[in-house]
Amino acid sequence: MSQDLRSQELTNGIDVAEYLFRRLKQVGVGSVHGVPGDYNLVALDYISKNGLKWVGNCNELNAGYAADGYARVNGVAALVTTFGVGELSAVNAIAGSYSEYVPVVHIVGYPTTTAQKGGLLLHHTLGNGDFMVFSKMSAQISCAVSMLNDPHEAAVLIDNAIRECILQSRPVYIGLPSDLVTKKVDGDRLNKPLDLAYPPNEPEKESYVVDVVLKYLHEARNPVILVDACAIRHRALKETHDFIVKSGIPVFVAPMGKGAVDETLPNYGGVYAGNGSNKGVQERVESADLVLSIGAIKSDFNTAGFTYRMSQLKTIDFHSYGVTVRYSEYPGVRMNGVLSKVTEKLGQLNIESGPNPTNDIPHAQLQTSEPTITQAWFWPRLGQWLKPNDIVITETGTSNFGIWETRFPRDVTAISQVLWGSIGYATGACQGAALAAKEQATSKRTILFTGDGSFQLTAQELSTMIRQKLNPIIFVLCNSGYTIERLIHGMQDPYNDVQEWKYKELPAAFGGKEGDDVLTYRVETKEEVEKLFADEVFVSEETKQLRFVELVMPWDDAPEALKQVAASAAKRNV
Amino acid sequence: MSQDLRSQELTNGIDVAEYLFRRLKQVGVGSVHGVPGDYNLVALDYISKNGLKWVGNCNELNAGYAADGYARVNGVAALVTTFGVGELSAVNAIAGSYSEYVPVVHIVGYPTTTAQKGGLLLHHTLGNGDFMVFSKMSAQISCAVSMLNDPHEAAVLIDNAIRECILQSRPVYIGLPSDLVTKKVDGDRLNKPLDLAYPPNEPEKESYVVDVVLKYLHEARNPVILVDACAIRHRALKETHDFIVKSGIPVFVAPMGKGAVDETLPNYGGVYAGNGSNKGVQERVESADLVLSIGAIKSDFNTAGFTYRMSQLKTIDFHSYGVTVRYSEYPGVRMNGVLSKVTEKLGQLNIESGPNPTNDIPHAQLQTSEPTITQAWFWPRLGQWLKPNDIVITETGTSNFGIWETRFPRDVTAISQVLWGSIGYATGACQGAALAAKEQATSKRTILFTGDGSFQLTAQELSTMIRQKLNPIIFVLCNSGYTIERLIHGMQDPYNDVQEWKYKELPAAFGGKEGDDVLTYRVETKEEVEKLFADEVFVSEETKQLRFVELVMPWDDAPEALKQVAASAAKRNV
Repeated sequence: MSQDLRSQELTNGIDVAEYLFRRLKQVGVGSVHGVPGDYNLVALDYISKNGLKWVGNCNELNAGYAADGYARVNGVAALVTTFGVGELSAVNAIAGSYSEYVPVVHIVGYPTTTAQKGGLLLHHTLGNGDFMVFSKMSAQISCAVSMLNDPHEAAVLIDNAIRECILQSRPVYIGLPSDLVTKKVDGDRLNKPLDLAYPPNEPEKESYVVDVVLKYLHEARNPVILVDACAIRHRALKETHDFIVKSGIPVFVAPMGKGAVDETLPNYGGVYAGNGSNKGVQERVESADLVLSIGAIKSDFNTAGFTYRMSQLKTIDFHSYGVTVRYSEYPGVRMNGVLSKVTEKLGQLNIESGPNPTNDIPHAQLQTSEPTITQAWFWPRLGQWLKPNDIVITETGTSNFGIWETRFPRDVTAISQVLWGSIGYATGACQGAALAAKEQATSKRTILFTGDGSFQLTAQELSTMIRQKLNPIIFVLCNSGYTIERLIHGMQDPYNDVQEWKYKELPAAFGGKEGDDVLTYRVETKEEVEKLFADEVFVSEETKQLRFVELVMPWDDAPEALKQVAASAAKRNV
Repeated sequence: MSQDLRSQELTNGIDVAEYLFRRLKQVGVGSVHGVPGDYNLVALDYISKNGLKWVGNCNELNAGYAADGYARVNGVAALVTTFGVGELSAVNAIAGSYSEYVPVVHIVGYPTTTAQKGGLLLHHTLGNGDFMVFSKMSAQISCAVSMLNDPHEAAVLIDNAIRECILQSRPVYIGLPSDLVTKKVDGDRLNKPLDLAYPPNEPEKESYVVDVVLKYLHEARNPVILVDACAIRHRALKETHDFIVKSGIPVFVAPMGKGAVDETLPNYGGVYAGNGSNKGVQERVESADLVLSIGAIKSDFNTAGFTYRMSQLKTIDFHSYGVTVRYSEYPGVRMNGVLSKVTEKLGQLNIESGPNPTNDIPHAQLQTSEPTITQAWFWPRLGQWLKPNDIVITETGTSNFGIWETRFPRDVTAISQVLWGSIGYATGACQGAALAAKEQATSKRTILFTGDGSFQLTAQELSTMIRQKLNPIIFVLCNSGYTIERLIHGMQDPYNDVQEWKYKELPAAFGGKEGDDVLTYRVETKEEVEKLFADEVFVSEETKQLRFVELVMPWDDAPEALKQVAASAAKRNV
């Protein structure tokens, strides 16, 4: 291929950077996140020229989190950093995207190929002439690494990276030396869109698996469906939804699967997470004689500390990489095709109904006249207030456990990082998600829940949201420190405290005008929450201002599920 | 060794974490930087118990920068992060310490050895059961990696890591699984301090090299000394100082060597950086018939874009790893011993004097009645205002080039990151440096110069400084964006703009009380700078409050040296 290109004249030669950004636009990227640095500046010139928007984050870790959040709403994201210093700052965010299957194209501006070959002692190097060391580090957390050192291969490598990123739903790394930016590649290649369809299953094999699944399904007396993260990340939501609706089987979600299922469906039964499940769910799921598990990631926090009690003999696992029926493995048979066919041929099933979660406030919470906002009160109350199409982002901490108790309206996108669990993530992700929402036709609310401890890690991304005129609703749960850590170890130890900030003053310090750009609030009682939730300006998706709420909660209060998981984590730490 | 320990009873068994932190204390660590996370919480209990202070930074990158700054003042630093998410956030800071030879002990809290062996699907993992992937990444930027998976080896591995860290002056990585924290090791080992002395040179070889050096030195008619970063980082400052004073040879510093030499000495001649040198310096250095170069790092920014013009035939290079005389190499002969002996046997030399830099304001700046604070005016004016013992931190950008024009009083410590050049570094480093200064007997001022663009990356470390009651003087140079990037590419392009913050409001938002904890200022004219520099509360090292100054400068103004270097970097990017 490169030989062919080498020997042919380019009739429609375009610059490598133009090719890259036009391809990204073709696959759905509207905005590019990142931070400028001298090795990427020339490439940045091509972003707005090719109809993309440059975000310009406050730092690279935040940019990486934002790109992750953007990708979860938009389908794919791009991030530009500079060699060494920039890319390494983003590594934790990229590892998170890798861990949680989020497609982010990470473009790193490199020194020129000449400087690299000469081993020059440049700034942003380790001083040892090794220009490959950082890409080697990133290779551990990328599903493809494309170093664009030769214009004759550049277009092919770009296409390959973007395709792998989307098909594998994981980050890829593209190294772009500054002298390659303006080298010519074949622009005509852009006329043919990238093929992003999953390769179809081998028909005979797929048919065989469908029959096996149907056999067990028809034999089952009280089957359940359990939907988890990989149904979202590997794009099997339509097939999953059709199966749930047509079959009528009680359906549950794992915590990482929140948002995968229409929770207003009559057969939606709540969150299953072993001992941390919603009320009545554990009994129903664990007594089922068949569990149809779609896209499971059985991590500690997603299973409330490995407390699933389901026999593999009663389980069918649907995955992107294959299907497992009891102990029979069918590798290479993607869930999407199998689920469609199973739905098609469903026939008569035995259904035994499941629990019906509500957003009713627990009885004990209604009895008390205590004005304090408790976790047990807040999360179901939130469920009553949410609207269809909302994007709900919850930080690792009390929020992403609390949300287990919230039943969503339809079409809610839920974003959290249950597996990777990097605190600070949610605030960055909120910027990206809110931007992606703004770029979509339907007007949506982006709503962030973070804790005070977590917010401090990445607080300055509030500035980027203000600068980009985004209008998310941000709740900072003020409970004086790292409550999730307290529950694991050191309940009252000072290392779990944080400096008390005046959070509400930050938007103004970051250049946001109260009233024009930002509306700030502080709520300390249930009554104040009620008032806020009834405030028409505050609640509307049409409100142009970013809304920033200090939500005060007791330092030692936590959702029940978190207490359960923390105790189990503490036990595993010794 | 491990076999011996296995078979013996421990008469004075102490916990692994106690051993670790007591060793760190023995080698001079007073405070430990980092962020709590569930895999390091149990270890954190041992910090205050063993007489160390826990800092508790806002995020891990900032903690890493702070540890670097602390190490540059204190000699060595320790950083604690948690597995995966925490350690990866710090990777850029650690790479900077590696690149710039700064000794930081990075302790990473790991899941238990049992969980690792079982390949459990834990939070903070990539979900693939690989627990070695992050240490493999860090191995690229660490001079030793010690995984404490076996109590019988733990003490030896800890000792080895700390020793390598200090002797090689580079970061080391210690992986501490949470179940190892409380395992017993031999406490009696602590009675024998670690041997941190550099191994002496082989005497005959050293003598030989000393004679060769002296031969060329005696033949020289107008020799010069050029001191660079490695004289500081590899602890050869005393030997260098004695040589400068006794020989009387004109001495110059490279930008990274600022602070290595007593700039009040009569033979101090200024900053040499090729075409970016102080006035008169380039001519003097490049016409010398012998350059005694001590600890050189000839990187692009340190040489104003590789513009040295000195023949190797006229050069003697002194390094930690060997000495080179013209083209004759003497590997394994450390500079410290050679310099001492050369000083001892100096004899009669031919000296031709060099230029004498002053902090006089350039003539053109004195002529104008323009009130604007210019770079050309500010940096020499700063030199008049600095005091002995000041710690001066300059961010990559206009500051770390501007400081070339500042002649220091004696015993000034200069901190910047000329080689690694990660923006945001300086604010984090300021926290660490100010804390190290506070722990020393002499009261010192820690003074930070950063730009608005750079400050935004790590702004929340201001909160840690307030929380820890540190009193640095912080200047944020408000010039509307990334001026260093503008000069390289995209002078007026929007990607080099940043959101306009109300910087002065941040300390209050971060919980600092104006008057009690913080004093804030804004200066827009030379006259206001003069007033500030004359304000006794502002200037005193005894003032307890953190002082925060918005220093307004024109967006397109830059020190001459930066213009020179940026033009050369831009040229190398195409």
